[in-house]
Amino acid sequence: MHVNDVVAYIQANRERFITDLKDWLAIPSISGDPAHAGDVRRSAEWLAAHLTGEGFPTVEIWETPGLPAVFAEWPAADPDAPTVLIYGHHDVQPVEPLSEWATDPFKPVEKGDRLIGRGSSDDKGQVFFHTLGIRALLAASGAAAPPVTIKFLVEGEEESGSVHFAGLLRERRDRLGCDAVVISDTTMWAADVPSMCTGMRGLTEAEVTLRGPASDLHSGSFGGAVPNPLHAMAALLAGLHDAEGRVDIPGFYDGVVPLTAEERDAFARLPFDEEAWLRTAGESRAAHGEAGYSTLERIWARPTAEINGMWGGHTGPGGKTIVPREAHAKISFRLVAGQDPAAVQDAFRAWVAANTPPGVVAEVAIPGGGVRPCFSPIDSAGVRAARRAMERAFGGEVLFTREGGSGPEADLADVLDAPLIFVAVGLNDDHIHAPNEKVEIPLLLKGAEAAAYLWEELATALR
Amino acid sequence: MHVNDVVAYIQANRERFITDLKDWLAIPSISGDPAHAGDVRRSAEWLAAHLTGEGFPTVEIWETPGLPAVFAEWPAADPDAPTVLIYGHHDVQPVEPLSEWATDPFKPVEKGDRLIGRGSSDDKGQVFFHTLGIRALLAASGAAAPPVTIKFLVEGEEESGSVHFAGLLRERRDRLGCDAVVISDTTMWAADVPSMCTGMRGLTEAEVTLRGPASDLHSGSFGGAVPNPLHAMAALLAGLHDAEGRVDIPGFYDGVVPLTAEERDAFARLPFDEEAWLRTAGESRAAHGEAGYSTLERIWARPTAEINGMWGGHTGPGGKTIVPREAHAKISFRLVAGQDPAAVQDAFRAWVAANTPPGVVAEVAIPGGGVRPCFSPIDSAGVRAARRAMERAFGGEVLFTREGGSGPEADLADVLDAPLIFVAVGLNDDHIHAPNEKVEIPLLLKGAEAAAYLWEELATALR
Repeated sequence: MHVNDVVAYIQANRERFITDLKDWLAIPSISGDPAHAGDVRRSAEWLAAHLTGEGFPTVEIWETPGLPAVFAEWPAADPDAPTVLIYGHHDVQPVEPLSEWATDPFKPVEKGDRLIGRGSSDDKGQVFFHTLGIRALLAASGAAAPPVTIKFLVEGEEESGSVHFAGLLRERRDRLGCDAVVISDTTMWAADVPSMCTGMRGLTEAEVTLRGPASDLHSGSFGGAVPNPLHAMAALLAGLHDAEGRVDIPGFYDGVVPLTAEERDAFARLPFDEEAWLRTAGESRAAHGEAGYSTLERIWARPTAEINGMWGGHTGPGGKTIVPREAHAKISFRLVAGQDPAAVQDAFRAWVAANTPPGVVAEVAIPGGGVRPCFSPIDSAGVRAARRAMERAFGGEVLFTREGGSGPEADLADVLDAPLIFVAVGLNDDHIHAPNEKVEIPLLLKGAEAAAYLWEELATALR
Repeated sequence: MHVNDVVAYIQANRERFITDLKDWLAIPSISGDPAHAGDVRRSAEWLAAHLTGEGFPTVEIWETPGLPAVFAEWPAADPDAPTVLIYGHHDVQPVEPLSEWATDPFKPVEKGDRLIGRGSSDDKGQVFFHTLGIRALLAASGAAAPPVTIKFLVEGEEESGSVHFAGLLRERRDRLGCDAVVISDTTMWAADVPSMCTGMRGLTEAEVTLRGPASDLHSGSFGGAVPNPLHAMAALLAGLHDAEGRVDIPGFYDGVVPLTAEERDAFARLPFDEEAWLRTAGESRAAHGEAGYSTLERIWARPTAEINGMWGGHTGPGGKTIVPREAHAKISFRLVAGQDPAAVQDAFRAWVAANTPPGVVAEVAIPGGGVRPCFSPIDSAGVRAARRAMERAFGGEVLFTREGGSGPEADLADVLDAPLIFVAVGLNDDHIHAPNEKVEIPLLLKGAEAAAYLWEELATALR
């Protein structure tokens, strides 16, 4: 296979690729709006037909209790070749406020190098470059089948919470078996700074209630002589962190995979403008966090405890001199590789119990099991192979990032017991989830090129 | 004057005293309900007529921008005699829930030794025993005028916040000049444990707002890397007290008059059942407060900082993984003798500024000037004289208490620059501000007897 053949195929098929993608983007597959359930189904059917047209021997629409996913499979010629599952989604975010869109969100248009329309970056565009990549690889190599068995799983409920996704994975596990999962639903650092995400943080949430007297008390008659649950809450939550900004819950850091010198170095080489970042952080006035870590390390690779809400006593206008009966707080923890949501939940419960003062009764409610973190070490075989593919396409060094948020991707790694590899070409300024979503067409084409090389690289690396 | 003559007069006039008091109690002088404004005025007129009938040479109804007060004056024969002002109020609390009253709140009835009706204890009954006391003193001594110049100031807005009281005091200061103020609007420890209150706590309130980012932020993208105002609030308020339960604001205790060994001893001799008290404290599970002080000392004689309300971020159902933009808290301070609300306000502002972390902006709002504490040392001439009068009436030792709450009484001491003397016979179980308010008639008569002796004692003590 010649690089020039891959590039030539992609260039030759650019128009058809964009035209097809526009067709798909025109379907308003808004999963969060029940009125668009039929459109989500049309979107699945459109994709299924397209994949069939591209040559996938197996294409199926998979029903869920909610909206349908699309599954496709193209076996490698070599029965011993590894299997790779591509994950993406075909549903999109709502488009409100419509008045802020310069063009119709579902009438995609090209403006210069940009393709504008809902779903162009998140995530139809990024699912779509894979189909072009596979065709380019087969054309350039002259093979009838890819060098790895390729599976597609394209979800229809990602933008509405992936409610049925974990269930679907468990139910269809036998069909989804793979050696690696390629995720194409994230971003690169910048158009001229290609990068790969290597992990997402996990999440677990808790609500704490501290109870004091059975009713609010007059602070003149009782103030200063009985425990005040708001004082107890302030003291409890002030103890969440130590003076170094570390979470001060015994056991919280157990198992945390430390950042390697290589990854810290890769993060440090990203052109990060902290002042500009603070402006995007709601005009925050200062960076703040765990001592010894940079801002990027704090949001990507270190676990956190964050108070999301706190309330109790008199919160209306004017004064009310009471000792209140109850205090409440909602707390969430972002977790990193090596942490288990259930273990953090147990540690938190124990910590609250150990730090509740006499005369105050604590209750901890934890909704659900949380989201597991996901992480692929940068020196793992899959990540190294994907990086090589990206570097071949982009013609330069590919750096590393992570995602601070949490997503259903962790379920893929867990249920399928396979490492995740993030290959994506979205940008942070693509306006995903916002008006005027766009994608850079040259990056989509680079994505297709990287995808073409990826199967070749993974065929060797995962064997 | 013979004790027996005072007692005999009071016994002989018991029926007339009760009958007159019932007349007054029948007037529903609810100051908090505008529909009863006419009744409050009728109550003032009734009292004015009664005081005239009892022989006061000067009786006036004093208008305010709200509801009227009654002023009366009976000069001593000796122009060099001291002047004593009696403070009380003729307005009453609302009566809801009416269904919980066993009798009509404004059709006062006697049941055994009790007189039941709204205002019987708070405060008409306690104003009224003074008129009987003065008549008994004059009858027993054969004098035409009392041994001190007696002034009455009976307010009509105490139960609705004494909104115009401080203004009235300032406006009429020339008419109200006195050497001591007798307050008859509090309680004794118990029917068989006569006691005198010697002070009330002051009060100042503040609202703190801490601002972080300009809008709520996604905790996945920003959590752990920018300041969270709820964390800052928890840390700030956790620092309100040190490990010993002392308020940890520099300067807070400046000037605080320490408890004397004599007063601590007097408090300690009160038959205080802490377990029973905790039950009245909303079933609080433990006593709590400043180390080195008893519960009674904590609520009566030590200053406090109490969080009355706290809120910020997501407080509704479910989770919301945000770094919130703002945190709020309402805090009140109870103050004791020697503390100045304005100085505490300044100390609090400085403390908040010194304890606001980088990246967070603090705002402190302080509504009004606060309420000053009031306090009369137990070895002061006025308190000792009143105690002798009480002991003569009750035939045994009179102990000391204080009030943990705050009230307009402090304005009297401030504006008139005169010490306060609390002489009262109400009980904590009189159901004031509640259905079925009552007063113990034998205690009212003891109050009248103590009042009779009081003028004689004060004539000597204050000269």
